[in-house]
Amino acid sequence: MAKIKIDGNQVFLYPMPMVLVGAVVGGKVNFMTAAWVCRVNAKPPMFSIALGAHHTNKGIEENKEFSINVPDVSMVEKTDYCGLVSGRKNDKSGLFDVFYGELKKAPLIAECPVSIACTVYTAVKLPLDTLYIGEPKEVFTEERFLTEKKLDIKKIRPFTLTMPDNNYWSVGTLIGKAWNIGKGLKK
Amino acid sequence: MAKIKIDGNQVFLYPMPMVLVGAVVGGKVNFMTAAWVCRVNAKPPMFSIALGAHHTNKGIEENKEFSINVPDVSMVEKTDYCGLVSGRKNDKSGLFDVFYGELKKAPLIAECPVSIACTVYTAVKLPLDTLYIGEPKEVFTEERFLTEKKLDIKKIRPFTLTMPDNNYWSVGTLIGKAWNIGKGLKK
Repeated sequence: MAKIKIDGNQVFLYPMPMVLVGAVVGGKVNFMTAAWVCRVNAKPPMFSIALGAHHTNKGIEENKEFSINVPDVSMVEKTDYCGLVSGRKNDKSGLFDVFYGELKKAPLIAECPVSIACTVYTAVKLPLDTLYIGEPKEVFTEERFLTEKKLDIKKIRPFTLTMPDNNYWSVGTLIGKAWNIGKGLKK
Repeated sequence: MAKIKIDGNQVFLYPMPMVLVGAVVGGKVNFMTAAWVCRVNAKPPMFSIALGAHHTNKGIEENKEFSINVPDVSMVEKTDYCGLVSGRKNDKSGLFDVFYGELKKAPLIAECPVSIACTVYTAVKLPLDTLYIGEPKEVFTEERFLTEKKLDIKKIRPFTLTMPDNNYWSVGTLIGKAWNIGKGLKK
């Protein structure tokens, strides 16, 4: 072991799940890419999204609603495009087939295997980013993405991001069962 | 499209990065597995970890320090074991080679390709979990995990978790460059 120190600015988690965050900003549907997203509470379920000063924030703060949509690998170009251009200058409302559940300011993407309509539970101001914590009110999927009534990652085919190399990755192979494979180490 | 609704309790993000969170609890080194972890601020870098009522929390709150360690696929059994047993009853201090940077209450795992020593910036109480937001003071790796001075996921070989199926997955293949592959959609 020869440990070296590296700059924390260059350190992320490996890898990060890619999503499309939907909001209605100034009356217009908008989507942005995000990877700093996380489940943060068990019951009720809650998700956090950390956003810099994006166009999307205005819609989330105005409506207290947003969506998290999980794209599949076939959507990598469109997903990337949503991170390349801002809704301030570019109309992204026609990129996807949009549908709604009960929350009319949380636009959902039909092409995405999983779509989560959230209300804002709280927002935590950090030095640069805002951490929006959302509570899912409705989650939409399709039968074809389930195995034994559970979402099946091999059917969803999500993808992930690494930074600062800025690469997208598919999910690899199954390497073990969680809360199980380590049982042999119990004394 | 035939969308169906599913219970939000059964919805996570796909997939989630696995880490080992280190703390000193009651004077003893402890490690727990976590996957609800996320980068949450750009500058300065910050990470969040969402923890239920774990033994680890006591150490984090007492010392205002913790570590995030990224295990590789060869460590899947030990990582899983750290999620199977609690430091309340089981001594996990000898499982790994431990080292320290400046923060003496943030134990780091030598076997992990990346180890992040954090101070607590803030803690957000959610209905069930606590979201600890940490600021990395030092990040340790080894030369062999870098390519052109950046952490290289193919060398780190991290793994991910999906719930509620509770499976660990390796990282798959490169499917595109981020902030690039969608450029063709620009008008």
